Amino acid sequence: MPNPTAAMLTIGDEILSGRTRDSNMPHLAQALAAAGIDLREARTVPDVAAEIVAAVNALRARYDHVFTSGGIGPTHDDITADCIAAAFGVGIDVRADARAILATNYSNPEVELNPARLRMARIPVGATLIDNPVSKAPGFTLGNVHVMAGVPEVFQAMAAGLVPTLAGGAPLLSATVRAMHPEGLLAEPLGALAAAHPDVAIGCYPFNRGGVFGANVVLRSTDAAALTAAERGLAAALDALAARTG
Amino acid sequence: MPNPTAAMLTIGDEILSGRTRDSNMPHLAQALAAAGIDLREARTVPDVAAEIVAAVNALRARYDHVFTSGGIGPTHDDITADCIAAAFGVGIDVRADARAILATNYSNPEVELNPARLRMARIPVGATLIDNPVSKAPGFTLGNVHVMAGVPEVFQAMAAGLVPTLAGGAPLLSATVRAMHPEGLLAEPLGALAAAHPDVAIGCYPFNRGGVFGANVVLRSTDAAALTAAERGLAAALDALAARTG
Repeated sequence: MPNPTAAMLTIGDEILSGRTRDSNMPHLAQALAAAGIDLREARTVPDVAAEIVAAVNALRARYDHVFTSGGIGPTHDDITADCIAAAFGVGIDVRADARAILATNYSNPEVELNPARLRMARIPVGATLIDNPVSKAPGFTLGNVHVMAGVPEVFQAMAAGLVPTLAGGAPLLSATVRAMHPEGLLAEPLGALAAAHPDVAIGCYPFNRGGVFGANVVLRSTDAAALTAAERGLAAALDALAARTG
Repeated sequence: MPNPTAAMLTIGDEILSGRTRDSNMPHLAQALAAAGIDLREARTVPDVAAEIVAAVNALRARYDHVFTSGGIGPTHDDITADCIAAAFGVGIDVRADARAILATNYSNPEVELNPARLRMARIPVGATLIDNPVSKAPGFTLGNVHVMAGVPEVFQAMAAGLVPTLAGGAPLLSATVRAMHPEGLLAEPLGALAAAHPDVAIGCYPFNRGGVFGANVVLRSTDAAALTAAERGLAAALDALAARTG
């Protein structure tokens, strides 16, 4: 059975302006690879409701899971929860359980749980909460969409709780081999290797370190035996190349 | 006149697997902001032809510019140029000028310019070349799609040559103010500030440094006077908040 598929949707002007470098996508990518869920696409959209709604609806129709990052705080630019409700066509309001969780952050919640903070307890109808052990304000899952915070520490904590609860498949295994040949000489043997090992994805990532040209060859597969066979094939091909180029 | 719009398309399994953290998107985002071109969306897709073609066609129909990163090297997984040709419905073949540029990399091009390396001279019909001062193999522009390398040094060099040739608009100006209040107390005055300054995008990015809660408030606008007015409004709002919370 093929692995479940996933997309990530990063929401935030600060990413598209270049001010902030997103670390949530690479973090989730690694967690999903380990869990046997295939991350097939990532998108970043600005804090614009129509863009968020359109992206959520496009991605949730296409993939088994959609993970969002950003826009669930207390400020005016935090519009993700409302956009998810709009995308699903359901209502959204402050929910008692989410409010009770938020209240534990404050010594005097009747005063400190102001209208802005209460926005973080607004949960679309039908959602289940995602635990936030860092700063309490929960994320939520609605259908196949998992809505998480943008602050990396919180995103990572939410993912650590959520991902193991999802039905995964075969973990994506990988092997990296450093080849001290220019990519232009590796290309032909790697093409033959890829053709001979259709269940293994073979990537070639060149580098130039002080005038020395080489490449990291990365083999990826969910099939351990296929990966081992391809590793052996790569070793033989590199030996042959070394013998040929001296 | 509104600024031209842009999307970035990052192509590569290595990004979606979490192995490689993309640095080209944040680099391009900053270059476009300075040039007055609004980056509105970023997508990452795997090394799969149908995915690349679909993303290119969706994005080029919607934005003034599309910038791609990755997949233009000599190996079997470098399929971007063919996908661009397919997306536009044009032919692709080795082009003499691109081949001549590539040949300057080699002391004996008749031998060293092997079939794999020659793939880097395959250019879709109608494209213009993008200069690669780092490693020669050119990128290209076809219609409103700019095809660049994934290796960061090469991507950055291509962008440095390309972006200044594009018609830009008003640069995106920004100001960042560090506010030493929790986001839940900043939310109300920032909401009022955003409503009073519709030409300024106001983002609030919270942090927690050793138990001290604060936020970076970022103001962004292409209108310098509007930005200055919003900065003054923010300063007054923070003064009022400090007086109130003592």
